[in-house]
Amino acid sequence: MPANMISKLLEKAVLPMDVAPTTHLNKTGGVPRTSVLRNPNMEKLQKGYLFPEISIKHEAHLKKYPDAKVISLGIGDTTEPIPSVITSAMAEYALALSTPEGYQGYGPEQGQVTLRKVIAEKVYPGMGIKGSEVFISDGAQCDIARLQMLFGPNVTIAVQDPTFPGYVDNGVIVGQTGGADEAGKYAGIAYMRCAPENDFFPDLSRVPRTDVIFFCSPNNPTGHVASPAQLRDLVDFARRNGSIIVFDSAYAWYVSEGEGKPRSIYEVPGAREVAIEISSFSKFAGFTGVRLGWAVVPDELRYADGSPVARDFDRIVCTCFNGASSVAQAGGLACLATEEGRSAVRAVVDVYKENARLLVDTFASLGKEVYGGADSPYVWVRFPGRRSWDVFAEILDKTHVITVPGSGFGPGGEGFVRVSAFNSRERVLEAAARFRKFLA
Amino acid sequence: MPANMISKLLEKAVLPMDVAPTTHLNKTGGVPRTSVLRNPNMEKLQKGYLFPEISIKHEAHLKKYPDAKVISLGIGDTTEPIPSVITSAMAEYALALSTPEGYQGYGPEQGQVTLRKVIAEKVYPGMGIKGSEVFISDGAQCDIARLQMLFGPNVTIAVQDPTFPGYVDNGVIVGQTGGADEAGKYAGIAYMRCAPENDFFPDLSRVPRTDVIFFCSPNNPTGHVASPAQLRDLVDFARRNGSIIVFDSAYAWYVSEGEGKPRSIYEVPGAREVAIEISSFSKFAGFTGVRLGWAVVPDELRYADGSPVARDFDRIVCTCFNGASSVAQAGGLACLATEEGRSAVRAVVDVYKENARLLVDTFASLGKEVYGGADSPYVWVRFPGRRSWDVFAEILDKTHVITVPGSGFGPGGEGFVRVSAFNSRERVLEAAARFRKFLA
Repeated sequence: MPANMISKLLEKAVLPMDVAPTTHLNKTGGVPRTSVLRNPNMEKLQKGYLFPEISIKHEAHLKKYPDAKVISLGIGDTTEPIPSVITSAMAEYALALSTPEGYQGYGPEQGQVTLRKVIAEKVYPGMGIKGSEVFISDGAQCDIARLQMLFGPNVTIAVQDPTFPGYVDNGVIVGQTGGADEAGKYAGIAYMRCAPENDFFPDLSRVPRTDVIFFCSPNNPTGHVASPAQLRDLVDFARRNGSIIVFDSAYAWYVSEGEGKPRSIYEVPGAREVAIEISSFSKFAGFTGVRLGWAVVPDELRYADGSPVARDFDRIVCTCFNGASSVAQAGGLACLATEEGRSAVRAVVDVYKENARLLVDTFASLGKEVYGGADSPYVWVRFPGRRSWDVFAEILDKTHVITVPGSGFGPGGEGFVRVSAFNSRERVLEAAARFRKFLA
Repeated sequence: MPANMISKLLEKAVLPMDVAPTTHLNKTGGVPRTSVLRNPNMEKLQKGYLFPEISIKHEAHLKKYPDAKVISLGIGDTTEPIPSVITSAMAEYALALSTPEGYQGYGPEQGQVTLRKVIAEKVYPGMGIKGSEVFISDGAQCDIARLQMLFGPNVTIAVQDPTFPGYVDNGVIVGQTGGADEAGKYAGIAYMRCAPENDFFPDLSRVPRTDVIFFCSPNNPTGHVASPAQLRDLVDFARRNGSIIVFDSAYAWYVSEGEGKPRSIYEVPGAREVAIEISSFSKFAGFTGVRLGWAVVPDELRYADGSPVARDFDRIVCTCFNGASSVAQAGGLACLATEEGRSAVRAVVDVYKENARLLVDTFASLGKEVYGGADSPYVWVRFPGRRSWDVFAEILDKTHVITVPGSGFGPGGEGFVRVSAFNSRERVLEAAARFRKFLA
């Protein structure tokens, strides 16, 4: 591929849509319309996306300060190159597709058998997970959508507040909710407040029973990793209520070793009957663009009628999806199958973890209340009595650093900003220096 | 990657699920259950998948004839190696991910700008399609699922009969239908019979208005490519009814050149206001395992309230999906951006087209009524007065060749079998020889 073609592929730009404002349309003039009614669930979705809104502020900032060296500690996008043991495996697999022996068409929709087994063995050692329970995917966000299609419109859901917006948005799209209120909470969803005051774990005695409980640990955005006792309480709660937990462990590789902190819900006895786990290669192997993840659906997980959830999920995977890219799967195998691969990805995780430590130390030295960062690439900083978007704007204005307003992750994030450790060491150090200079 | 690792990746095996039969469960014994009700839409899905059913018959056949050299002309899975100009581009892109300059995290959810533009220019020359209207995906099947999520449970749909089952199955999952009747037709769906008697195009005066019309040309399974007049009628019908056409052009590269047969719905004037097109790299570039496709949603396509369909689809792509694998996109660009790439994929298509011609000739020489094959990798053979599954079984028993029973594509496929041209020339010739010998 010519070098200019590669560089074009690296463009981050998004093509703007060229759609005329709908307010200027009418039936007698302008663009003709179909008679198809817009999906009412799509109408319920709140208009302001978090990250596009940040992009708009970013662009406005660049207009105001054309020479500013803006550093993004905003969106959680990986920046470190992928270790060559992994990219070589992808390249080798791709090249082999040009040979009669190496060519492969459709793989199994559920993923390559070897990769499924390796994930079961290496990510869930001693937890009794079988390869047949691991469904390979193109990432955790896509699995959230597929799980919400699986559950359908009639289930009730609970989410942490704050949390990754994908659980809620996909629930809105499939019709699980009513509209949103002024604070941004959708009717019909149980929001479980997770704040420093409750050690980022809800008072379960005050949480209503729901069919499904989405729970992310290490949490995005707070960076909090649930303790063994907290996860035991969560599993007990689900078992008492007959609920299904969807445990998002996309950041599990950031959990420090040797401190007994859980990386998987399946470390808790009794979880197999009540929990699905979703995870991803994005944040530990830098696969944000390569796209690879997985979902674990244990055989024992059953609906009220006794039918296995895995059987319906298998049907969803075969009907709504057709397997993750075989090239990405070759890369995923290289991450996990050998000690060389596992060490290489751990080294990359350590870079981001050290970045996070530097950021935590910086905010702590400024006297800020700071959370996360120890077992997570996200640092969660409190600005008591202030609005998240105001703090975001002030930080951007004073330091030319992009962060994320905590309120973008739910009403419970108000008063916080999330600072991401996903950037080069050099830029993180520069950002830290600016914070010390201008936020003191 | 060690050779044994690659060979493991090539395993086609599917891990069987280890779920106990639900009939043996009860509340006092066996596996404990959650209280979550199974999604009623999932319950509506008919149990027998077509291709798993064929696999079961295949295995039974191997038990009966352990030495049989079975040839699969069943599932439409590509077998020819991918031209090296394409795999080299993927390999190069993958290796560059290990360098600071070549590393890329999240790409735009809608796909790389350059690839979107190249598809607009090279696949839709002179049709006024813009790059911003092209949404890159991981394949047409996945786009069908996303489109059905977009439309939601309240729309009505029409499908060709017979057709690819994905349109209907995804409609059932999102709740557009009632249950299925004995013939396999779901309540609420308009089935448009497409048979030799009507030149594989429905009598539109007898088709009820629906919100959405799924239409596949060249059709899977009949191999029929709609004529310009037929597509004009379809677009007129949609415009009169205010319907949205979802035009599946996954087999467009099989349409013979210079005969005026349409490859895209956008060759028809007026289609931009009423049609979405979905397509795929799977069948022309051998990307069945690599996973890459696209959807075109023109700016002019509007809901009844005047809001652009593209805006909601963009939201679906950003919320339920996170972009196709960047490595696959590098391969897609290599297919289309240069004449070298385009010639290389055309050469592969020609191999399958010649296979199809050989199969058509074979069945014609046997006095069979045979359709398709000229502009499609599928050959559609009629066995009047017989059941598709009986013919499938007889062909398998007499010739050790796997085909697909036409009834698997809808009630209108009864009495036909689909024979796929996706196999090596050698095997297709061998299958043809067996047909001549045993089906005469």
